This record gives sequence, structure tokens and C-alpha cells, in this order.
Amino acid sequence: MRRLVIHDLLYSSLAQYGQLEVVSGPRRFTYQSVWERAVRVADRLTRMGVRRGAVIGVMDVNSHRCLELHYALSMVGAVIHTLNFRLAAADLLYTITHAKDEWLFVWEGFAGPVDKLRDQFPNWVWLTDGDSGGAREGDRTYEALVAEGRLVVPDQANRVAEDDPYSIFYTTGTTGRPKGMRYAHRDILLAPLQIANHLALHQTGARLSSADTVMPLIPFFHIHAWGAAIFPPYIGAKLVLPERATVKEQLELIDREGVTWSNMVPTQLHMLLDEAEAADRALPLRVLTGGSLLTAGLAQRAARSGVSFSLIYGGSDQLATSISAIPRDMDPNPSSPDTLQALSTRTRPLPFVEVEVRDDSGLAVPQDGRTMGEIWVRSPWLPRGYLRDEEHSRAAYIDGWFRTGDLAVSFPDGSLYVVDRQKDAVKSGGEWIPTGVLEAVLSQHPGVAAVAVLAQPDDKWGERPIAVIQARTALSGADLRAFMDGEVASGRIPRFWVPDRFQFAETLPLTSTGKIHKAALRETLGLGEQ
Amino acid sequence: MRRLVIHDLLYSSLAQYGQLEVVSGPRRFTYQSVWERAVRVADRLTRMGVRRGAVIGVMDVNSHRCLELHYALSMVGAVIHTLNFRLAAADLLYTITHAKDEWLFVWEGFAGPVDKLRDQFPNWVWLTDGDSGGAREGDRTYEALVAEGRLVVPDQANRVAEDDPYSIFYTTGTTGRPKGMRYAHRDILLAPLQIANHLALHQTGARLSSADTVMPLIPFFHIHAWGAAIFPPYIGAKLVLPERATVKEQLELIDREGVTWSNMVPTQLHMLLDEAEAADRALPLRVLTGGSLLTAGLAQRAARSGVSFSLIYGGSDQLATSISAIPRDMDPNPSSPDTLQALSTRTRPLPFVEVEVRDDSGLAVPQDGRTMGEIWVRSPWLPRGYLRDEEHSRAAYIDGWFRTGDLAVSFPDGSLYVVDRQKDAVKSGGEWIPTGVLEAVLSQHPGVAAVAVLAQPDDKWGERPIAVIQARTALSGADLRAFMDGEVASGRIPRFWVPDRFQFAETLPLTSTGKIHKAALRETLGLGEQ
Repeated sequence: MRRLVIHDLLYSSLAQYGQLEVVSGPRRFTYQSVWERAVRVADRLTRMGVRRGAVIGVMDVNSHRCLELHYALSMVGAVIHTLNFRLAAADLLYTITHAKDEWLFVWEGFAGPVDKLRDQFPNWVWLTDGDSGGAREGDRTYEALVAEGRLVVPDQANRVAEDDPYSIFYTTGTTGRPKGMRYAHRDILLAPLQIANHLALHQTGARLSSADTVMPLIPFFHIHAWGAAIFPPYIGAKLVLPERATVKEQLELIDREGVTWSNMVPTQLHMLLDEAEAADRALPLRVLTGGSLLTAGLAQRAARSGVSFSLIYGGSDQLATSISAIPRDMDPNPSSPDTLQALSTRTRPLPFVEVEVRDDSGLAVPQDGRTMGEIWVRSPWLPRGYLRDEEHSRAAYIDGWFRTGDLAVSFPDGSLYVVDRQKDAVKSGGEWIPTGVLEAVLSQHPGVAAVAVLAQPDDKWGERPIAVIQARTALSGADLRAFMDGEVASGRIPRFWVPDRFQFAETLPLTSTGKIHKAALRETLGLGEQ
Repeated sequence: MRRLVIHDLLYSSLAQYGQLEVVSGPRRFTYQSVWERAVRVADRLTRMGVRRGAVIGVMDVNSHRCLELHYALSMVGAVIHTLNFRLAAADLLYTITHAKDEWLFVWEGFAGPVDKLRDQFPNWVWLTDGDSGGAREGDRTYEALVAEGRLVVPDQANRVAEDDPYSIFYTTGTTGRPKGMRYAHRDILLAPLQIANHLALHQTGARLSSADTVMPLIPFFHIHAWGAAIFPPYIGAKLVLPERATVKEQLELIDREGVTWSNMVPTQLHMLLDEAEAADRALPLRVLTGGSLLTAGLAQRAARSGVSFSLIYGGSDQLATSISAIPRDMDPNPSSPDTLQALSTRTRPLPFVEVEVRDDSGLAVPQDGRTMGEIWVRSPWLPRGYLRDEEHSRAAYIDGWFRTGDLAVSFPDGSLYVVDRQKDAVKSGGEWIPTGVLEAVLSQHPGVAAVAVLAQPDDKWGERPIAVIQARTALSGADLRAFMDGEVASGRIPRFWVPDRFQFAETLPLTSTGKIHKAALRETLGLGEQ
């Protein structure tokens, strides 16, 4: 390949990995057959008049179809907009309109929820599980495109430049409209490949190599499954796409296909461990996790079940920034206590990525492992701003840096402990209280199944923390207060961090990405917007 | 870092690896101090009027000075021309003139050989081992530049673009003038980093990780030590630069500094194993080797001594192309017989690199592991041609591909067995006889210390192979003929490959890169030019 262009990467890997399997739910493909189906779709779309630069919305579970469209649209020079099917209907429509999607490719499994959309969008293709699928009479199906397409790479494919836009996806904040991100081919190659490289070059709990079988449990619409839609053919790993697999079915896929590596948010890890424990079995898996804080309790539980992991920090608006790795001078066994602690808290910037932790005046805070500040990031794949949103862009993308809004402390070795989203943190008497750290501490109490710490307006202190607990066993506020007093006595947290109130809930509401939905919780509790 | 620029890579690694050691002979630095010295030199050179795009010749052993200049010249936007000090004086002068070097930086240890050059080049800086060094009265020294420079990154550094030229070096063919190569920053980042990534992502004998201590024994003037001048701060490895270390001193450095990874041509590996065996010790080292064929005898000997290795194929005119790695379905122990065989013969193209083995008419030969053809390469870092040499460029750089002139067979799994330089091969009765393979077979005879197979003009066949042997023990042509008959009987080689003549020599002449100098040998034997 001459250029850092998405379809060129797959093409240049075929000579070595063409016969390697790509499993999608019950169906079996190879990288070669994925390539050939993508070529046919690209040929068909080109002849249907899809032009370079057109934005194409794709709404699918993690399937071979969505993977093929990653390459087919690259060849056409079109832009893939991976739709977040977990968004509320109004937000989903907003993203489709805002991205200016010209075509929609929608999995037939979503036929019910998207019924209204169907009538508004004439350029519609159903992604079907089989030849006919559940598409309405007269509707176009993806398999028809494959069948009608010739095995001829469109001329257009050779004119695609690495700086051309490749994909659009939306951030899923807990407040306001989703914000659009648009990345070039080169960005979506470099960042995912640096994830793979980092996991191979470093001693990590989620070591990755060409001997692996990769199953991305992060949806494709989250930065292309955190890059796992992109890097498997680069490293020569077998790929297993879970489609709509339940947790139980995910476990079956792991066994049947020999999955050795996966990525998931802590909530998914939690559910997978529940399932494995219920089946009284180990889970020998390397896992990349992140997206919300990994509690010490979950980390230890994972290690006991045979899961070794690394933590990733990043986001839709910055791509991959840092991943935990075992330092040179530490016990390389990922489940020894210190190493486990490092892997579950301290991430290290990827090569090419610069991170600064700054105070409110924009000065770097001391790298002492104690002083909190806001994370600023600079990297080769950073965009210039949000899509068609100058106001938010100006506030976040400043002088080539991205102001993340996340709070961290940094250590002398350049590693980073991300403690909270700044807007989630509690500012009490002018001092930050990181709710994430408090949640991590509370989660270590054996009676706590899940916990969220929220800011409550306070006349004296401005804000004070309160904790909402989903209990595993009978548990009182007094129990937890005593537990926290112990933590204060041992010096782990300052006295003023102890929540003013412990409140219990049956379950905690989750966002579309499996994080605890603090905004919804605030509303339920009548705490108002933060 | 926002761009794929050499000095930005080091800069972005300082936060994590700034305190990691860079050892240069007897002196100890860190990546941070290397960076600071480079900044001072860049500041001084900028104020001395060295302009963006100026070509600077650097003639040094593998030292911290040469490493610092890699970054200092990058910041200035100048082009580093790494001079091959093993070239004959006339060729050396040719490369300096042809590259249009405006300044020369020369290690004082070369003072004798370069005395004549000194008078022709007013812009001269001595690279000294200490503050004063052996420079002549009034001459400029490198340490003076460091002392006079301010710790201020020149403004110019931020204007350097990733497509700007970064380095020039010359191919060292055995015939004709050296041919110049000029690569951009981006090329010299991507290719070396892909070497490191490949060695980490795959199961190889030369696995590389951030736990390693790297000592490049390939000189910097060979593609920046095959990239090992570039990738150590990227992966976070400690770096040991051997300067002018003898083989014995290399072994001492390995022990003293805990070197775990090195690169070297087979001749250097041979010498290091001699030294280790003489000291009756193992050599627990991971080694990347290449540049000439690795004989089965040397591979087995290396494995017995504890060296595990991978083979690299590439060259100054194509950079890195392929590296051996253990396939998914093979015993991952690098010293098991099949694996050793695979690691020492079959290389796999790096990610992004396409390789085709073509016949004389330009068609790909079958990937059957038997049919020989010429290697054609396409990659993101391929240049458009040789520097100021349209004739050779047109012959070798064709439609985005580089025609290597090397012979190989390719396998169904996309791996490549490089059997010979095309111009070294023997064409007998219209069929290629790969001299490299013959040499590998002959080297397995216990009495053979070194061997070269050459083409001898033949009235009937066009050419026939003859073998020149450096014997380890008493040995006759009849012994070798009988040995080769056995190889024919076992089906390893066809009858017509057996050399017509076995000739003995005290020693075989070597080129500046440690390969057997076939051209010199041909001349000695009166075989004429090939």
C-alpha cells in the first residue's frame, strides 16, 4: 500500500491472512471473502451513483456486514457514519440529520424501532441476516447489493487520499445533543494500530499478538469498537463478531471459537464474570477495558477468574490516548497485587501522544501522583474540532490541544490516573472531590454491588458528595459510614471526602454505553442538572 | 506530537522515558539529556546559519553524538547524510559530493583517513569523545556546539513537515558507484516503527518489548541501524550504543548493561558466537539478522548458544520489507527444528507492505514454495527513485513498485524465501541456480567455515556454479562432492545445481557490510565481472 487508507490496509494483509477466519454470529467468512464481498458492494454502490464524500449511515450490531461496509465505503470514498442504536429516537434522528446521511443501511433486527425513519429516507438498504431477510417487499437488501456487484475494485478506490474523511460518529454525553466527530482515513488507521502496537510492545494484561482470536464486545459505533474493527487484519488475528449475542452466548463464542482477547466496558466485564461464575468456570481471557472507572473490587474479581486486563483511556473526541502497562521495574505477573493495582488505575500515553495535566490557569500541575488537574491531550489523530459546532470546538480544541474535561493526577513516570469526569466531580469548599475515586473505594465494601457518587448543592460548601448504593446484601448507611471512617483512618482518603449521605436503590440506571447514568439518577433524586 | 516528524517522536516519549538510560561506550546519558544536548546543537546550528534543507554529512561510529544529531538536524530541518566510513576513499568522496553535503561532522577517530577531505571542506566539525578531543587547533568541535547552544528549541523545529526530506544514505552495491537514497521524516518513522511493531505483534525469535535493552550492532549508516536508531524511545527500551567496541567488548557491554536485543549481519553473529564459545558461555540474546543469507549451520549454532533470532529482508533502496515470524499453527519455541528452519528462511511482509514474486515477463509466479522469481515491493515508505539518477530509477522504480533484483520463492501463506541476489545467481541452461541456497547447503558440512558460490562462464550451459571454500578442517573437493551427492539423493537439491568445481581459500574477502565480497573474489579468481 502506498497510503494510509482503510481498504488498502485490508488489501495488503490478504497475501498473508486472506484465509484467516472472520466469524460473524453463526456465519463463517475469511478476510479474503470479506474483501471480495466489500469489493462487490463498492462496485454496486459506485454504479448506483454514490459519490466520493457522501455520508452513509450504518446501523448494525457488530457483524460481518458492518465490517464489510468499513471497507466498501472506503473504496467508494464515502464516509461511514456508524449510528449509535442505543440513542433515544430523537437523538438518533438528530445525528442522522446533522451528519447529512445520504443513505441508511439498517439491520433488519431494528425494523421495529426505525419504522418511522424508514418513510423519511428513500435511500435505504436493509442489512439482512440471510438472502431474503425480513425486508419489506420491494426494499433493497444488502445481500442483493453483494449479488449484483462485480468483483472489480472501483477506479475511485485508487483516488482516495489518506486525509480524506473516513468516518463520522457522535459523542454520547449525558447532557445536551450528541456532538459529531469526523476523522480521516489516516486517523482511523493510526490510532487503532497504535492501540494494537502498544498492547504488543508493552507488558500489559491485554497483550495482543498474531496468535490471538479477537472478539470486540465494544460496539462498532464506539470508535470502530475502540479500533478492534480495524486492527485484526493488521496483526493477523482471527476475528469473531458477536452480532447480537447475549452474555451467555458470548461465553459460548469464547469457547467455540477460542477467543483469547476482547474489549468491553466494566459493566460488560461484570456481567461476563457473573455468567462465568454461575457456570462455575474460569474465564481465561485478556481484556481491554475502560469507558468508566474499573473498581478495585471488579479488578480483583476479574483476576481471580483468570481475566487479565489493561485499562484504556480515550474518547470519541480524542480517540485513544493512554493504556495501562506494567512498568519496567514491576513484577510482570498481571495478577500480583501491585501490578494489578497499576494495571487497573495508571494508564500510559500511547506513542505519539502527549498528555498534560493542567490546573484552571492552564499550567501543568506537579507530577506527584497527588495533585489533581484537567487532562489536555495532543496527538497526530486529534481533529480540529467538533463537526459543524464552532462554539463547542472553540472551547475544547485549543492551540492544537484537546481539553478533555477529565480529571487526573499524573506520576513522575508519565503515567496518568484518571479520577473523574470534571463535570461529575464534586467541588466542596473550593476543592475537587473525585467521585470516581470515592466510588472505587466504596465498591470495595463486600455489600456494595454498584455505587454512584453525586454532587448535592450545599449552602456552606457549594457542593457535597452523596452516595447512591445498589446493595448486594443487607446494608445500612451506618455500615458504610464506619467503613469510610476506616478508610480515612488509614489515610487513603481525606475526611472531607466522606459522603454526607448514603442512599439505597434497587438498581442504578445505565447509559447507552453501560456507564451509570448519573444525569438520570440526579433527576430521580431531584438534584437538578449539574 | 501532531506530525510524523523525527524529533517530535523523541519529544513525545520524554514524559514516560526521559529518565531511561542511553549508554554510549563508557558514557551514560538519558533520553532527556540526549534531547537537551540535541536542542543545544540545533540552536547553535540555526544561529550559525544552517538552513532548512541543508545536507549535513555525519561520519561516526554508533555513538550518542550521532544519535543526538539525528534529532538536532531534524529540529533544524536539515538532512542527515550518514556517511559509510567503510567505503573506499573515492566512493566516500563521491557520496559527499553527490549528496551535496554542506557540512561534515566527523569523529576524531577517523582523523587519519579523512585528512585529505579535511582541507576540501571548510564547514567541518569534529565529533570528539571528550571536551577537547583530538581536534586540530582552531577546529570546531561538537562539544563546543553543545556548550555554546541554548536550551531553546529553534522556531524552525515547528515548521518541519513530515514529508520534508530527513535523511540520505547510499546503497553499497558490489559494482558501480554507490546509489543515493533520500527519505522523508515520515518514511524514517514508519518503516523502523513497523519493524518494532512486527517484532512485538508476532511470535518471533527477536521479540521486542519495553522491557528490553537494545544494542544496535548494525552501523547507523545502514538505514539508521536498520531503524534501531529510531525505535528505542518509541518502545521505551534502554539503548546501548557500542561505539567502536570490539567483539570482546560487545560481549562485555551485553553483560554489564543487560543487553537483551541486538541486530547484526550473520558475519557479526558468527564472530560473537566465536567469542562466546571461546569464553565457554551462553549468549542469551534476541537478534534480528539479515543482509546476507543465514546458513542453517549458523542458525543451529546460534540456537545452541541461546540466541533466538528473526531474519529481516530489506535494503537501502526499499527500507524494511519482511521479517521472519512463527506462523499461528507452528510450535512457538524458536529453537524447535521446524520453527528454527522457518525463522531462518521464511520472512513475512510487514504490515502495509505488498510483495510480489514475478517472472521475467512481470507476471506473479505461483505461490508454491518452489517457483523462483524476482521480488517486487510496494510500501508506504518507498521512494520515487534514486537521488539524481534517472536512469537507474527508471529501471528499478516502476508504477509505484520497486524491482529489487532479488530472487525468491513465495509460499501459500504469503511468506517469502529470499534465495539470492539476482545478479549473484547462476543461470545454467536457462534455469536459475540460487547461489545462496547452495551456500546454505554447503555450510552444513562440518568442515566448511565459509563458502561462496560463483558463476563461471560455460560454453555449453552459459554459466555453471563453482564453490570457493574456507575450510575449518582438512577437506577435499571429493569430500564435498560426496556430500552434495547425498543432498541430491535426498531430494534437497537437483543434480544440476552441484558445483562443477570446489576450490579452497585461506579466507574469503568481505565487503564493508560484512558480506562475502563476491566481486573481489571473482576478480581474484579471474572470473571477470558478472
